[in-house]
Amino acid sequence: MVLEKYPSHQELQKCDWSQLQEIAGRLRQEILQTCARQGGHLASSLGCVELCLALHRHFDLEGQDAVFFDVGHQAYAHKLLTGRQESFARLRDLDGASGFPNPEESSADPVYAGHAGVAVSQALGCAKARELQALPGRAIAVIGDGSLGCGIVWEAFNNLDCWGKRLVVILNDNQMAISPCRGTLRKCLNRIIAGRFYNRLRSHLRRKTHGFFMALLQRIEHGLKGMLFPKGVLFQEFGLRYFGPVDGNNLKELCGFLSRLPNDKPVLLHIVTKKGCGYAPAEQAPEKNHSVSAFNLETGLPLAKAPCMSYSEAFERSLCALAEERKEIVAVSAAMLGGTGTKQFAEQFPQRCFDVGIAEEHAVSFASGLARQGMRPVVALYSTFLQRALDNVYHDICLNNLPVVFCLDRSGVVPDGPTHHGIYALPFLRQMPNLTIMAPADDREMQVMLAYACTRKGATVIPYPRGKCVRLPGTDEPLQRGRAAVLRQSPEDNLVIWATGQELQRAFALAEMLEKKQADFRVKIVNPRFLLPFDSQLAQEFAAFPQVVLDDATPAGLAQCLQEALFSRKHRDLLVYAWPANTMIPHGKVEDIRRRYQLGITDICEDILLRLGK
Amino acid sequence: MVLEKYPSHQELQKCDWSQLQEIAGRLRQEILQTCARQGGHLASSLGCVELCLALHRHFDLEGQDAVFFDVGHQAYAHKLLTGRQESFARLRDLDGASGFPNPEESSADPVYAGHAGVAVSQALGCAKARELQALPGRAIAVIGDGSLGCGIVWEAFNNLDCWGKRLVVILNDNQMAISPCRGTLRKCLNRIIAGRFYNRLRSHLRRKTHGFFMALLQRIEHGLKGMLFPKGVLFQEFGLRYFGPVDGNNLKELCGFLSRLPNDKPVLLHIVTKKGCGYAPAEQAPEKNHSVSAFNLETGLPLAKAPCMSYSEAFERSLCALAEERKEIVAVSAAMLGGTGTKQFAEQFPQRCFDVGIAEEHAVSFASGLARQGMRPVVALYSTFLQRALDNVYHDICLNNLPVVFCLDRSGVVPDGPTHHGIYALPFLRQMPNLTIMAPADDREMQVMLAYACTRKGATVIPYPRGKCVRLPGTDEPLQRGRAAVLRQSPEDNLVIWATGQELQRAFALAEMLEKKQADFRVKIVNPRFLLPFDSQLAQEFAAFPQVVLDDATPAGLAQCLQEALFSRKHRDLLVYAWPANTMIPHGKVEDIRRRYQLGITDICEDILLRLGK
Repeated sequence: MVLEKYPSHQELQKCDWSQLQEIAGRLRQEILQTCARQGGHLASSLGCVELCLALHRHFDLEGQDAVFFDVGHQAYAHKLLTGRQESFARLRDLDGASGFPNPEESSADPVYAGHAGVAVSQALGCAKARELQALPGRAIAVIGDGSLGCGIVWEAFNNLDCWGKRLVVILNDNQMAISPCRGTLRKCLNRIIAGRFYNRLRSHLRRKTHGFFMALLQRIEHGLKGMLFPKGVLFQEFGLRYFGPVDGNNLKELCGFLSRLPNDKPVLLHIVTKKGCGYAPAEQAPEKNHSVSAFNLETGLPLAKAPCMSYSEAFERSLCALAEERKEIVAVSAAMLGGTGTKQFAEQFPQRCFDVGIAEEHAVSFASGLARQGMRPVVALYSTFLQRALDNVYHDICLNNLPVVFCLDRSGVVPDGPTHHGIYALPFLRQMPNLTIMAPADDREMQVMLAYACTRKGATVIPYPRGKCVRLPGTDEPLQRGRAAVLRQSPEDNLVIWATGQELQRAFALAEMLEKKQADFRVKIVNPRFLLPFDSQLAQEFAAFPQVVLDDATPAGLAQCLQEALFSRKHRDLLVYAWPANTMIPHGKVEDIRRRYQLGITDICEDILLRLGK
Repeated sequence: MVLEKYPSHQELQKCDWSQLQEIAGRLRQEILQTCARQGGHLASSLGCVELCLALHRHFDLEGQDAVFFDVGHQAYAHKLLTGRQESFARLRDLDGASGFPNPEESSADPVYAGHAGVAVSQALGCAKARELQALPGRAIAVIGDGSLGCGIVWEAFNNLDCWGKRLVVILNDNQMAISPCRGTLRKCLNRIIAGRFYNRLRSHLRRKTHGFFMALLQRIEHGLKGMLFPKGVLFQEFGLRYFGPVDGNNLKELCGFLSRLPNDKPVLLHIVTKKGCGYAPAEQAPEKNHSVSAFNLETGLPLAKAPCMSYSEAFERSLCALAEERKEIVAVSAAMLGGTGTKQFAEQFPQRCFDVGIAEEHAVSFASGLARQGMRPVVALYSTFLQRALDNVYHDICLNNLPVVFCLDRSGVVPDGPTHHGIYALPFLRQMPNLTIMAPADDREMQVMLAYACTRKGATVIPYPRGKCVRLPGTDEPLQRGRAAVLRQSPEDNLVIWATGQELQRAFALAEMLEKKQADFRVKIVNPRFLLPFDSQLAQEFAAFPQVVLDDATPAGLAQCLQEALFSRKHRDLLVYAWPANTMIPHGKVEDIRRRYQLGITDICEDILLRLGK
């Protein structure tokens, strides 16, 4: 199939409105067709078709200008307009187009995107660099209203005045992050939008009204102005020139504003778009249609039935059941109630559920305050997004030994690609003081682990992957702190496989395959359950056997637990003198602290003589 | 020495103004005397004496109320007022009082503090929890104007409206973070403060003026009001009721405001304090007196001469020299120009230095934009504060393979205690794709490593410790990527010590001690130089010798590099099947990706048969 090419920046400038409208229609159709087949981030991208088109008409995004799409959910039309139709047809397949901006696909994508809130900072850096280099061109950051809840945006805003002359911030206000936005900023934007509709009403009335009513109207208007048009005062306080609100699905209005933006100071253009625009099922249920799997175009319904229970669902059920009994359990989500399985909790216990917006750092610090005051917060995040708050886990939770439970969904590699893999957080966390890390194999373990976590004094991290959660044999063994569970064994075992979570499902398959292919293999399967504290003793008991690690993480995960457990058994001669892990090292003169941990030169000298001397 | 006790909350309520003034004077003297002897965070704490006193008068901070001091630099008077005089006399000594809030010292400190921006979130959590539990009491967050540049504060503000009824935010505006604040928010606060002085002028004039002039004044006032009193509109937009500005060093004014604060909605009280208040040398040079070592009370001058060159100074010199030649080098600091050795750079190259405020996440993302557009940003941060931006390093820098140099000062354990130790970041970073990690042993290596980092395609992390930088033998060997350097050796070596940075100084001392105590020891000292990529080959060449690791980090640092290098040599039988580290794993169906990395069940089965089968 040869696809009809979309016009370039230069060609778009020559198009008239009807041609542009037709292109928008084609883009929308192509996005719809592809998402219906491949799945994808449908609703946001449908809402941004006109924006992408208008941006490409006004800016040379493959040349001197650069657009930074925050998160990148909204960039499909941009992909199609920059020569990626062929790969877009294989959206989200390996070697097909990524679902997010990707500089390896096109020079029109300056950076990978996937995490919220950074686009303004990136665009500011780009704009400032071009200024330093005396190059022309502008940097455009497109951020959603959801991203406004993310602190990085305000950190960037605080710096615009000094360095942001060449910057255009486009606030794509679709009144939603993945789910509807909450918080004061949303109210603030609502006031502006309300002003906009009042504005329209006013022009309408003006056309129809005369004399006395007109004068009255003007008086009322004057009085109400401050109340009804606090347009962008918030952004203006941060040194941004505010323009808008504009109907972001109206090409003419949008292009009009883009062509009138000043180019000597940072500006914010507030556009209002409709998530799912142009496709009725998505317009009506934008949250459901935020990220879709393949669906029937006519009905909007998914083609495949949802698979059996996911780990998220197992978590959701366990949490709700537990929360019935334990009134101190509260849930904290960062704009991901649906994704992390806290939606049902929110419905059942609205007073005990806190959706704080795309604000992982605040989520964790807020949880520390709740826990400090006797509540038992369960913070449900994707593993990749907890990376935003690792310092808060350390500084606010672990140092204070507070009983917060972190449920890390999407731990492991996920289809969304490099920006979303949940494989990096554990090695940082494994060093934390006062922390327990448990990985549930199935729904039974999810339940007992969550219950155990909710009784602990300190914090707990519970990582689990995306995808189906299969009931496994042996997972009903009572949970014992720091002890692994053997899920499969026989008296003649001569090979041990270690794995957690979903990898255990693969371990069972692997064991059977191995035994079938070589008759003298007898495979034991071990579920460590605890990554911290790790069952080193059991690992050492098996030291005579070959041991296999299956892990949906970097080798700094489970493999390192085993390496640590086994290393000293054979390599007696690696002597390590380092600060102890999982310990809160106190303040004081460094020499004093060293001495406390037997790390002074004299201590070390003695220890070496003891271990190696004659 | 028996110290005279300070009055309790109940007793303070009965004190008259002159008694309170006298207590303030005593507190100030005690802080001064102690800091002169022990060193400490002098200027901020002097500025907050009246605030601490007023807070203890109005709130029961050891009972139903709780105060969260952001960062905690300003809390010395609070410590003295809560029964810690004895330990305060040994401020910052091991087992003496910590320089920061510390719940192990007193129930009046709800949490450890040390990192900026989290106090509002914590206090909000605490306030909400008390509301849920139907308990009385309020939560107070004390934040500096510097902390306003930190995004977490705005994430919290966005949530106040819903959940912050019992919250008091006190904005302690001393016009500085550690150094003077920049950014739009500072301008915004300046406008408010200017309004305040206008306000005073007005009351003054009112008292003196009559008739026509009074009317004229009122008219002008009305006209100017909007311009001169945009008092707190920014905070009001976020749903906070704004009060102030108040002279925060005026006890009477402060107490007056505190007693009038409403207690049914979140309030922000803006107080203006003088950093170093009451001690002339600190008032005149608040930045120098932010964190002091022992000093002469009469002159304000430090008792000890600064030691020989620190790593920070070695960095500063190298950076400035390099930047003379390389115009694309720019520096990014997060409100720590002085601390991180970028002050001289800022003076020499003001156009190329960006102090973004206490905003590490923005600092890193901003650097990604600068780098994307051809600049060579050097981001200078403390290791512990980079923890705030680990996700940005991953998402914005490493995934995009951008040439940003991270200079991590204070890597290792530091006197400031658990909140400030720089020992956790590397294990996370060691998993990153496209990243190089180099640890300089001395100033010569600092120079060549920085120069090398500035030529690389991708990002580099250069960690180095606080403290003196001693020139070592052998550090002039040419730098080779991924290769260690042997700093001390003889043909009869039979023991190898691995160490980086300052630990190498200790390694030399240790080597001599060992050889002296046991005549047949011959010690080789190896400086790995690169932690990523690590010189595994050299480690393996030495596998026959006992090897010693000295590391100012958790065992997840250098020790793990060696464990990884050596493990497979002896423990042939630990087979690891995990996602590869330091690799950007692409998007796609997980099964497809697994196959690409030979991680499908069939691949693994075959590999095991190959390695263990008969």
